[in-house]
Amino acid sequence: MTTGVMDLNADLGEGYGIWRLGDDVALLDLVTSANIACGFHAGDPLIIRRTCAAAVDRGVTIGAQVSYRDLAGFGRREMEIDPEELCSDVLYQLAALDGMARSMGGRVSYVKPHGALYNRACRDEEQAEAVVAAVEAFGAALPILTLPGSALSRVAARHGVPSVAECFADRAYTAEGTLVPRRRPGAVLHDPDEVAARAVRMATEGVVTTIEGGEVRVGARSVCVHGDTPDAVRIAAAVRKALLEAGVTVEPFI
Amino acid sequence: MTTGVMDLNADLGEGYGIWRLGDDVALLDLVTSANIACGFHAGDPLIIRRTCAAAVDRGVTIGAQVSYRDLAGFGRREMEIDPEELCSDVLYQLAALDGMARSMGGRVSYVKPHGALYNRACRDEEQAEAVVAAVEAFGAALPILTLPGSALSRVAARHGVPSVAECFADRAYTAEGTLVPRRRPGAVLHDPDEVAARAVRMATEGVVTTIEGGEVRVGARSVCVHGDTPDAVRIAAAVRKALLEAGVTVEPFI
Amino acid sequence: MTTGVMDLNADLGEGYGIWRLGDDVALLDLVTSANIACGFHAGDPLIIRRTCAAAVDRGVTIGAQVSYRDLAGFGRREMEIDPEELCSDVLYQLAALDGMARSMGGRVSYVKPHGALYNRACRDEEQAEAVVAAVEAFGAALPILTLPGSALSRVAARHGVPSVAECFADRAYTAEGTLVPRRRPGAVLHDPDEVAARAVRMATEGVVTTIEGGEVRVGARSVCVHGDTPDAVRIAAAVRKALLEAGVTVEPFI
Amino acid sequence: MTTGVMDLNADLGEGYGIWRLGDDVALLDLVTSANIACGFHAGDPLIIRRTCAAAVDRGVTIGAQVSYRDLAGFGRREMEIDPEELCSDVLYQLAALDGMARSMGGRVSYVKPHGALYNRACRDEEQAEAVVAAVEAFGAALPILTLPGSALSRVAARHGVPSVAECFADRAYTAEGTLVPRRRPGAVLHDPDEVAARAVRMATEGVVTTIEGGEVRVGARSVCVHGDTPDAVRIAAAVRKALLEAGVTVEPFI
Repeated sequence: MTTGVMDLNADLGEGYGIWRLGDDVALLDLVTSANIACGFHAGDPLIIRRTCAAAVDRGVTIGAQVSYRDLAGFGRREMEIDPEELCSDVLYQLAALDGMARSMGGRVSYVKPHGALYNRACRDEEQAEAVVAAVEAFGAALPILTLPGSALSRVAARHGVPSVAECFADRAYTAEGTLVPRRRPGAVLHDPDEVAARAVRMATEGVVTTIEGGEVRVGARSVCVHGDTPDAVRIAAAVRKALLEAGVTVEPFI
Repeated sequence: MTTGVMDLNADLGEGYGIWRLGDDVALLDLVTSANIACGFHAGDPLIIRRTCAAAVDRGVTIGAQVSYRDLAGFGRREMEIDPEELCSDVLYQLAALDGMARSMGGRVSYVKPHGALYNRACRDEEQAEAVVAAVEAFGAALPILTLPGSALSRVAARHGVPSVAECFADRAYTAEGTLVPRRRPGAVLHDPDEVAARAVRMATEGVVTTIEGGEVRVGARSVCVHGDTPDAVRIAAAVRKALLEAGVTVEPFI
Repeated sequence: MTTGVMDLNADLGEGYGIWRLGDDVALLDLVTSANIACGFHAGDPLIIRRTCAAAVDRGVTIGAQVSYRDLAGFGRREMEIDPEELCSDVLYQLAALDGMARSMGGRVSYVKPHGALYNRACRDEEQAEAVVAAVEAFGAALPILTLPGSALSRVAARHGVPSVAECFADRAYTAEGTLVPRRRPGAVLHDPDEVAARAVRMATEGVVTTIEGGEVRVGARSVCVHGDTPDAVRIAAAVRKALLEAGVTVEPFI
Repeated sequence: MTTGVMDLNADLGEGYGIWRLGDDVALLDLVTSANIACGFHAGDPLIIRRTCAAAVDRGVTIGAQVSYRDLAGFGRREMEIDPEELCSDVLYQLAALDGMARSMGGRVSYVKPHGALYNRACRDEEQAEAVVAAVEAFGAALPILTLPGSALSRVAARHGVPSVAECFADRAYTAEGTLVPRRRPGAVLHDPDEVAARAVRMATEGVVTTIEGGEVRVGARSVCVHGDTPDAVRIAAAVRKALLEAGVTVEPFI
């Protein structure tokens, strides 16, 4: 019987106005941490409030999924933004979400940048500094959920801000432990059983098979499951079930 | 020597991106309460943060100037908005501003709706209920700055939310104590001395001369000076000076 | 064998960024006129362009579905907007859509206001004037699709702008020939066969059964089928099939 | 007596809602070509329409100042945008402005990208291709105003789209004929007489003194004067006067 502990996180509340993305309710019954959109790439205030309420109801931990201001591009377009502006944008989103979560009996417990900001802050120290500065300015000592070894985790460490490592069970890894870019064939896995098996190895052995067939270490306390694909709920359910059957404790990191 | 106490409030931080409106720094040296735009009719996060910092530096009390979501119309266009949506929109703005104020050593101490939402909530109980519900949900027992006798003040009272009465020294009043609509000739006064003299009577005697030449009572703890007119700073300075010379204590209501 | 001629119109291209609404492709195979969103309540430029291309491919007539500027509210919230602003907003949308349609080999052939602007312009002559002024300013003598007897049709007539009458097969009618408001029970019909049967009577006899059980005349050259309900495609297909079987010619009004 | 011909272009209509930027009316009396904002970085429909009307009144040629969608950043933040999206965004703006100009008796006669899109398209062929594709799709054979030797001018040439070279009288040049980046000291000149003298040399001799003191050729048919600085009108007036006094014909390039 293996052991271990793992958090399951997913992006939630990513509708806007009349539009919806993914099955938030089904996912909230499976994950332990909800990265809730804060209004800049998705999430109007009513959706935010309802998503917070649903998360609190189920005891799911709430994280602020902060983003570039880009509704039309869903926060997936990198922007050359002044660090002081970025810091203010992140702080604004963080504060807004926290106030709405508190009105529903919860609170923001961590921060996870979204989309292009996630990718950029993983390799660009200037934008990473802006994100960390916002988290510090908010003043609640919130951990940042990010890739281990990223610029964002290094900058956070430098400032004494905790970061939590996450891994991606449905994404192919290189021998260096980085994600294979989405455009390459085989970069995203779709078979729930395969994804679940990878999540189990990550949780119990701390390794994953690379795209070349070798192995690489991926020490992570949280595994991200995507919420916006057609198979999202099936994959999240398979991952959760497989982790539990392998004896892994599935619980939030905070 | 007359006595009395009066707060001076003005709308601040009403720029957006590259654009500015009014001379925030000059006004912050004159007023005691700053209604800071929260991003829905004006005020991007960087402007908000800097305006909060400048208010904190000068010991000016910060209020949340919450609005309809309407950048193109500067929040001056009434909207038929669902109360639950409006409540969420107000809560979002309130929470965002409070978090940014706190990052600068301040906090939000009161709420004042902006523009069309102000007017609507003064006469429409449904939208007034939505504003009050947001203030209650925020949970900090913040007072609402509004017209005495308005729907908003009545609804607030019903919910045990404090409201503070304000008056307008540069606006003409009817015999019923309501404001003369802007489009009517003589509705807005521009002479700093005349505006200042009216403010003094309001503060010391609690009355103002109506547009018809009579008198009407306007019990108010705060007087609003506008920030977006060319004469804004001169008028605010004249009002402040006249109040002090009349022996009125000029200080925040909270 | 009855005869008659009827156009089928539906709202299309109502996604935004990553979000979609309705099955545009399936509907484009059924309708003869496409009311394409122009970017103010839905429809980013890429979606607009692809929807225009798909409409041109199928020979479906393109109309400009102009709206208030309100992404968060999907254009369903009435706004007190200055007529000159509204006229400019409508003209901007009309021109943008027409240019994009032309780049795909089509053009805008008519105008249909969306949501709250539709409802408002049907009863408010001031906003109706603004819409008509935009259509006149555009200069292409485009007809306006609207309810017969509405303020919009009257104002259009006054200005020599053609209007085309539409009816709603899935909405209950009063004895006066107006639509039963959505919030009343029975206001919206969901059974495809019933909706189709009503469309046939409207097309062949020019009458519809009222909610009280009587009959009222609804002379219309176009019937609107909704695109954003789960049953949208089934209802549109049933209406089209029933009309054809009843000997009605299904073709655009322009 | 020297000769030569030169166009004067400036960015105009760059307000939004209640906000204004620069003195459009004064500039329109001086320039021969107006780069009018199309709504994505600035310019709401009412401002656009009024700016078009004012340009038409004065016989000033209208160009489409197309931009990234970025009101908060005034289009000054580079974005990693998909070329197909960018092409649609540019086409949308171009079509909207042209329709509004036509409603006022004018039309769009050329295209000039704004801010970050200008800079990016001058060095990135992929985004340059997207801009050129939009101009081609619009179908009016409009010339593109850009830096000589830029990626944008090369791509335009490849597609048979005309481009027109512009120069900047108030910006320092390197020995290679490129602009000194804004952040470097001396990059922007503020003295109207000096700027005017440089404009005259550019128009009559086709050269400018570099920041190092040498000379470099800058063949250009249009000189850009900035509209958003405090000295904008004085500089534009000085440039226009100096050009005329030097015998240069000041007229549009199209």
